[in-house]
Amino acid sequence: MKKILIANRGEIALRIMRSAKEMGILTVAVFSEADREALHVRYADEAIFIGPAPASQSYLVGQKIIDACITTGAEAIHPGYGFLSENAEFARMVKDAGLILIGPSPEAMATMGNKLSAKAAALKYHIPMVPGTEEAITDIEEAKRRAQEVGFPILIKAAAGGGGKGMRIVEELAVFEEQMQLAVSEAKSAFGDGAVFIERYVSSPRHIEIQVLGDNHGNIVHLFERECSIQRRHQKVIEEAPSSVLTPEIREKMGKCAVDVARSVNYTGAGTVEFILDENLDFFFLEMNTRLQVEHPVTELITGLDLVKEQIKIARGEKLSYSQEDLKINGHAVELRVYAEDPQHNFLPDIGILKTYRTPKGNGVRVDDGFEQGMEIPVYYDPMIAKLITYGANREEAISRMSRAISEYDITGIQTTLNFGKFVMGHEAFTSGNFDTHFVSKYFNPQDREKTEEDEALIAAIVALKNLKKKKSTAVTETAGGTTSNWLKNRTKY
Amino acid sequence: MKKILIANRGEIALRIMRSAKEMGILTVAVFSEADREALHVRYADEAIFIGPAPASQSYLVGQKIIDACITTGAEAIHPGYGFLSENAEFARMVKDAGLILIGPSPEAMATMGNKLSAKAAALKYHIPMVPGTEEAITDIEEAKRRAQEVGFPILIKAAAGGGGKGMRIVEELAVFEEQMQLAVSEAKSAFGDGAVFIERYVSSPRHIEIQVLGDNHGNIVHLFERECSIQRRHQKVIEEAPSSVLTPEIREKMGKCAVDVARSVNYTGAGTVEFILDENLDFFFLEMNTRLQVEHPVTELITGLDLVKEQIKIARGEKLSYSQEDLKINGHAVELRVYAEDPQHNFLPDIGILKTYRTPKGNGVRVDDGFEQGMEIPVYYDPMIAKLITYGANREEAISRMSRAISEYDITGIQTTLNFGKFVMGHEAFTSGNFDTHFVSKYFNPQDREKTEEDEALIAAIVALKNLKKKKSTAVTETAGGTTSNWLKNRTKY
Repeated sequence: MKKILIANRGEIALRIMRSAKEMGILTVAVFSEADREALHVRYADEAIFIGPAPASQSYLVGQKIIDACITTGAEAIHPGYGFLSENAEFARMVKDAGLILIGPSPEAMATMGNKLSAKAAALKYHIPMVPGTEEAITDIEEAKRRAQEVGFPILIKAAAGGGGKGMRIVEELAVFEEQMQLAVSEAKSAFGDGAVFIERYVSSPRHIEIQVLGDNHGNIVHLFERECSIQRRHQKVIEEAPSSVLTPEIREKMGKCAVDVARSVNYTGAGTVEFILDENLDFFFLEMNTRLQVEHPVTELITGLDLVKEQIKIARGEKLSYSQEDLKINGHAVELRVYAEDPQHNFLPDIGILKTYRTPKGNGVRVDDGFEQGMEIPVYYDPMIAKLITYGANREEAISRMSRAISEYDITGIQTTLNFGKFVMGHEAFTSGNFDTHFVSKYFNPQDREKTEEDEALIAAIVALKNLKKKKSTAVTETAGGTTSNWLKNRTKY
Repeated sequence: MKKILIANRGEIALRIMRSAKEMGILTVAVFSEADREALHVRYADEAIFIGPAPASQSYLVGQKIIDACITTGAEAIHPGYGFLSENAEFARMVKDAGLILIGPSPEAMATMGNKLSAKAAALKYHIPMVPGTEEAITDIEEAKRRAQEVGFPILIKAAAGGGGKGMRIVEELAVFEEQMQLAVSEAKSAFGDGAVFIERYVSSPRHIEIQVLGDNHGNIVHLFERECSIQRRHQKVIEEAPSSVLTPEIREKMGKCAVDVARSVNYTGAGTVEFILDENLDFFFLEMNTRLQVEHPVTELITGLDLVKEQIKIARGEKLSYSQEDLKINGHAVELRVYAEDPQHNFLPDIGILKTYRTPKGNGVRVDDGFEQGMEIPVYYDPMIAKLITYGANREEAISRMSRAISEYDITGIQTTLNFGKFVMGHEAFTSGNFDTHFVSKYFNPQDREKTEEDEALIAAIVALKNLKKKKSTAVTETAGGTTSNWLKNRTKY
């Protein structure tokens, strides 16, 4: 493998190119109209223009990516995350074109890409699922019996419902019948169908995921867990490895389950098996992501492995050079996603130019980014500016290093999640390890809510404003965003 | 310990402040006239002006440092490296002022600061020294007998000589008498004294040093070795840990010797015991540095310890929280000192402004620096711009990562050692691990020589030119230095 094409942009494109360069492999970048000046274009050995700014006309057009490979003689494609990375159809096109996709087989991707087939595959290996009824029921006596089997608290949800509508949490058996009756009649009147599902309600869930690697020779290992419970709007914003809550026994059990899930689809390459963990440290399978995750660096830091290099080695047919027993956790790593978002306004995307942009340095600090001072965050893509990752001998050191690194990070012109990161690092619930996915709504922003239609309208207005401003672009730096540093100085409490 | 003063400047001042910040300790910077705008001044919680640019009027004036402590209420001083860091007299002044020096006792410093008393201390613990005569001799028969004891090749050096004058290398016994007679008569005519020393000539020496840490409770451990054999003009420029040549047995033996050397002076804090290693992997004590070394980061990366934090913990009376058995080598680290020097002109210092200054990023890359784009490298101090350190799972990865990082490092306006680093990383002698302290003269610059009077005159001229240019400072960026990147592109071979 002499040359690979990176079908992505931003920090992950740069990150992949760095590993390729260290392996002596040439790189080809692709770029949209909005990314002409982007760092990943400058970093690559070659760069191919693939169309207009909207991803649907460039980064998401499989044929353009394949054509770019043929033009440049690239033998393989690294899809990064997002875009085409979990598109089984694209994976098939790549294979049919005689090229190598650095990722799993189209079949594994397709199976894990569908909730039902993923669940079916995992069940063959007896992977624990959130306990509940597999089919919708209406009979109250049967429901009661199943509820007792499942254990309280119970979630009753309308089979025909969605988006939280027709859901009831039942804390104890004594009130189950009454609540079930209410739920069924509500469901009937709301959806014309009284059937409901019953499942265990996990009131204090933690999001724990296991990194796996499989080669083309039947070897699959796991690289321990990442905890991703600090989320806003169901999206990860702070991750760490290892988790502060897992015991070695549960780690081993979850690891084994993750390897089994991967084995159920003969998984090759890097993948992630996501679990939900409850207050009793029982865990349940959620889904498998068949690609590199945003938060993969925390795993790299605690294992000493370069996951992109491992992906490339697997894609070129090499065997894993270690067994499960060789792998050890060493130290602790924390990642903060630095988004162009305003945490004070429900984490809505912010717009503008990076007027000041200085990244932190020093021992145990890694910044994976795709921007430099003076650049604009394109509105067309994910508003992530950078991933700030810190490593320490233990969790306490990784956290204090993160706080130090955040205070060194100097961004003006745009609101970011840096201050939110500082808030989390200093919060007792986080430092003690006693937190769950409700952290943001519990402690940071009690008004935190789902993205509403109002929010969508606001985002649309921001985009329109941005496009207007582009025409008189000098004005942008003067008016958009605030000064993060000043803001930090003025607000010591949230 | 709530506040410490850092009696240093540049990268090491910043590096110390970062660790202090992570420990929740406030920092005080001191600065000379030339460092008003320096990054270490901006980083500190407080900053005190201490005088004119020449170090002899600011950073080297112990009383000014102590006064700055008293003014700001700092309880302890971290001296960094260079300047006052190994000055036993200063260490005493600090103690007498009721302050804490983050370093060893004045007595340990004084003993190790003198070659003779250091040797005497080490001999109490039977530390191996380069074999040879302890006193000057003139008698040929006695010399012959001693030479046979010491073993060939032999170095005969005039007792009254210096700087390489009156030195002869004798390869074998057969020619010893003849060479000895010549040496004695040469010494007589040159110095009026025919007495000579005889010692083992180490023809292929490697510089290996052992990091030690001692607390105030009698515990001393070593943190393995650093290899510092890539030198120019007897000064380190590339270091790594671990060494590519040590066996676990020799590592253990050297480590034990280093701990014994430290024990001979009841050493406390971080220190380094330097050895010379010969072709047979026999090692001999050179000296002990009673301070933090420039190259300490490679040890931090392979052990996971933060050496500045360890120094501070020791200074506040804490016990080491690990024993020798707890310490393990994990991975491999390489450091390149990025100097404002021109490797093509015998590594003479270059002058100018950092017209472009972009540092590398990504997995396993650490940059410890004290500058940013647009800044001038002050002529008054050591011309080191940065330390570029890479870490990998093994030596090969650390080296390929260093090559990648060098290619990302973008400096224009000043000549640097970056391209020299690239040359070394790609050289078979280095990658195979088969090299010694003669690497530069053997492979890079066969004309490499001691700094001559001519060189000194050239440096003086550069300083004069620089001072002249300061008056019309805009001209400096235009005329001084070349473009490192262009130079790199134009020269692929040395």
